Amino acid sequence: MARWAPGASDRLQRAAMELFAEDGFEATTVAAIAERAGVTERTFFRYFTDKREVLFAGEEEFEGVFVDAIAAAPEGTSLNGLLVAALDAGGRVLQDLRGRDFARARNDIITANEQLQERELLKLAKLSRAVTAALVARGAGQVPARLAGDLVVSVFGAAFARWVAPGETRDLVELQRDGLAAVSELTPVEAG
Amino acid sequence: MARWAPGASDRLQRAAMELFAEDGFEATTVAAIAERAGVTERTFFRYFTDKREVLFAGEEEFEGVFVDAIAAAPEGTSLNGLLVAALDAGGRVLQDLRGRDFARARNDIITANEQLQERELLKLAKLSRAVTAALVARGAGQVPARLAGDLVVSVFGAAFARWVAPGETRDLVELQRDGLAAVSELTPVEAG
Repeated sequence: MARWAPGASDRLQRAAMELFAEDGFEATTVAAIAERAGVTERTFFRYFTDKREVLFAGEEEFEGVFVDAIAAAPEGTSLNGLLVAALDAGGRVLQDLRGRDFARARNDIITANEQLQERELLKLAKLSRAVTAALVARGAGQVPARLAGDLVVSVFGAAFARWVAPGETRDLVELQRDGLAAVSELTPVEAG
Repeated sequence: MARWAPGASDRLQRAAMELFAEDGFEATTVAAIAERAGVTERTFFRYFTDKREVLFAGEEEFEGVFVDAIAAAPEGTSLNGLLVAALDAGGRVLQDLRGRDFARARNDIITANEQLQERELLKLAKLSRAVTAALVARGAGQVPARLAGDLVVSVFGAAFARWVAPGETRDLVELQRDGLAAVSELTPVEAG
């Protein structure tokens, strides 16, 4: 696909992020994004449905990282072990492939726009359902799998918010482990 | 307000729910809802912005039940105790004031329509933030409060789905307690 425009997708994404940061999401047009990336609008639409979707590119691949980690865990891994594996894999990919600066810039754009926040919410709800389905496929019951899917998204979201906060230097994976430990203190432990 | 049309809000809500169930949400008009309720369209718009909002009437009061339970808990209540108080209060109000049949009918309508599912998702995200804010007001740290807000919504959502399932007879509050116990098994307990 698009042999004549190598790296066009990356360039379009970088151009869009720059323009969203400079002019705001609302004021940025597809024409301006294409121009800054040095491609035509037609090329833009070869990669993205609209300007909003530039910010959600790679959504399915990201979801796949969580799902694959669950599927690849050794047989007999506990439900707790599966959700830790999913969180570790997702956190690691985000910080290694995207990086904190990209995540911060994207987060600033999304936080400034209600419509984008709603879109992000849908993405996370979808992630929760995908994790739930992957856990059910590993033999988990529907109820614990659903709660675990929500928990993965909640712990990821809380850790992500800390990770992109100004001045934060800790690892995303470490912040997620920390969040999971915080949840264990929120829930009553049954008397033995 | 509306002294000349006593119970109009309730009648409109009942009429809307009937029509949504009979004809589907999309095909139902405000005119048809008003007609079945025996009021004018003007009266409809005195109570609701649009037909979608009929399904989300009482949203703020419901949120207030969780928030008030947290605010009213005895001094020194643990974060775990506060979230249990919120869940118990919310679950009890839903089953006592609305009832399972109403909740089932509403759930069927929402499940059949993607736009309504997204609206429901926004409602639950708002509930999570309200619970978080109430917990912070009780002295909880930002991170545990956020995780607890998500947990309340997750446990409520999972228990609600069981509660409205065909043939289910258990209490919503009991199902929530059960869900919370399931979450405690998902999270690692620190070695002492």
